Amino acid sequence: MRASEAKIFFVLALLLTASASSGYAEKDLRTRAAGIFQPLPAALISAANPLTPEKVSLGKALFYERRISSDGLVSCWRCHPLSLYGADGLKTAIGNSCRVAPRNSPTIFNAAGQISEHWVGNRSDVEDQAEQSVTGPGAFGMPSAEAVEKALAAIPGYLSLFRKAFPNDVRPVTVANFARAVGAFERTLVTPSPFDAYLKGDAAALSESAQQGLAAFMDLGCAGCHAGAYVGGASYQKFGIVEPYWIYTKSEPVDTGRFDVTKQESDRYVFKVPPLRNVGMTPPYFHDGSVDRLEDAIPIMAKVQLGKELDGAAILALRAFLSSLTGAIPEDALEVPVLPPRE
Amino acid sequence: MRASEAKIFFVLALLLTASASSGYAEKDLRTRAAGIFQPLPAALISAANPLTPEKVSLGKALFYERRISSDGLVSCWRCHPLSLYGADGLKTAIGNSCRVAPRNSPTIFNAAGQISEHWVGNRSDVEDQAEQSVTGPGAFGMPSAEAVEKALAAIPGYLSLFRKAFPNDVRPVTVANFARAVGAFERTLVTPSPFDAYLKGDAAALSESAQQGLAAFMDLGCAGCHAGAYVGGASYQKFGIVEPYWIYTKSEPVDTGRFDVTKQESDRYVFKVPPLRNVGMTPPYFHDGSVDRLEDAIPIMAKVQLGKELDGAAILALRAFLSSLTGAIPEDALEVPVLPPRE
Repeated sequence: MRASEAKIFFVLALLLTASASSGYAEKDLRTRAAGIFQPLPAALISAANPLTPEKVSLGKALFYERRISSDGLVSCWRCHPLSLYGADGLKTAIGNSCRVAPRNSPTIFNAAGQISEHWVGNRSDVEDQAEQSVTGPGAFGMPSAEAVEKALAAIPGYLSLFRKAFPNDVRPVTVANFARAVGAFERTLVTPSPFDAYLKGDAAALSESAQQGLAAFMDLGCAGCHAGAYVGGASYQKFGIVEPYWIYTKSEPVDTGRFDVTKQESDRYVFKVPPLRNVGMTPPYFHDGSVDRLEDAIPIMAKVQLGKELDGAAILALRAFLSSLTGAIPEDALEVPVLPPRE
Repeated sequence: MRASEAKIFFVLALLLTASASSGYAEKDLRTRAAGIFQPLPAALISAANPLTPEKVSLGKALFYERRISSDGLVSCWRCHPLSLYGADGLKTAIGNSCRVAPRNSPTIFNAAGQISEHWVGNRSDVEDQAEQSVTGPGAFGMPSAEAVEKALAAIPGYLSLFRKAFPNDVRPVTVANFARAVGAFERTLVTPSPFDAYLKGDAAALSESAQQGLAAFMDLGCAGCHAGAYVGGASYQKFGIVEPYWIYTKSEPVDTGRFDVTKQESDRYVFKVPPLRNVGMTPPYFHDGSVDRLEDAIPIMAKVQLGKELDGAAILALRAFLSSLTGAIPEDALEVPVLPPRE
């Protein structure tokens, strides 16, 4: 969708919902929500990368593995620590040797459900993201895929783990299998939340304030883009449909977004709509981490995407709804793997 | 003990054990070992910092906390990841903003049992180590203790956790309490191993090769310093009693060790005798990580401390014994804490 079309779409969406902005009975609200959002699946399965316990277990170990980075400090965990809900809390990520990345680290929880990875969609899926991170210069900083494979081979304990995870491979210790294993682990990182319980019929799972926020979220038009099981993550959209985003975020420099990837003028300032699952746990906000607090990010979105001014009560209600998207991290994922020693 | 005295002590120790270098019956070996080593305690208690579940739990969370460092990337985990047995696998540690530290990160497992912390004993205990790390320039890089406390206060969820851990404190969110909590967590990081089972009477807990290595370890004189529950960690010793260490380790620059701390000539090239618990899991070796492999570190120690040449069989046996010091990490410690969000 082009920016001009998107604007029309939003105006239409607002007109259609304007008459329904208050007074829903609980059941009506839930029915309406169930038409827009879906509960999270149990795992984010992929036909191309079937999940097996051995692959997931290897992937979890590799997620913590720093000895395959140029400075020995970068692992997947570096930018996606599970202790911080899978994001790093920095404005923009910092890779090997203190290299500053251009954009904010998104959480890896539920990430595999998106249409693509990274803010500008320049990674096709979590496996592609893992592979390009471990071989590219910015994150792990290794000189080549072969160098990564050599570093993995220098840790003898991995050979049997890769063999178990990839039993049909003659030479299983490869970067492609690293990516498959890490991707498989990430596909288990699903965080069902009170909102899922609500969608499944438990009205008491959302506080009254969160229900008001949910209604507002749909009424205002937020749900035009932030919909589905991930409350986003399914489309690209211009950031700043109504007004330039950087007026409000004070972003510097201004990021042209997906234009960097496609070089299409229509993609200027376009980003992937971020999923809002666990958004309350992953400050700072926006592609450049330019806004620290959720209660500041909410009115900026209303302003620049929808041309709306929110009052304090609406912001509080929306924040309460967004907090209901904070989910439970799977217990298995929270067990630290002990890695085999280097020879 | 001064270096010259230590040399005499070692010669005496070697003379005393020389006649007993082979042919022990299993029970005799164990009896002899039990006179030199002790099993690990259940926790490394401290009268000054009593352990409570609340304090340990807070300490575990703070161990992962990066948002109290100048670049937002340094936590205790940075240099002591539990996934790598509490050491970082680097030659020397790297603190905030890519600052290279002068010495290798020692493991935090069983560390609280030592006479002091760090290679040169310039930290009195784990609490002192935690406090100086979080306030000093090298690791966390914060400008002051107040800045650390402010950063902690910016994460509102910590207030109730500090209150529970320090119920008698009017203002519990302090750097001193950070250090007490982290220290309390570290005091639970005890890793009983097959060697403990052996010392307690289970002869089958050590392989034949490991038993040969244990005998050699005592016969050669290694146990003159590497003794007690931690197989070291109880004294200071010159590295290079017989010959300068750097001839063999190829160290550059040469580290003058504890001389840096005391400015006493007798402390030149003196280091704390490192505990050998889990040594097989924490390469690289020595204060500067100058040697990658345990089988290379073993003959260097024999050469420069004891003036002995080891053959391949002796090295293998000693390595088998040292592997029996690899212990089990407490399950509770291996559960990732989920940290409260920043406001």
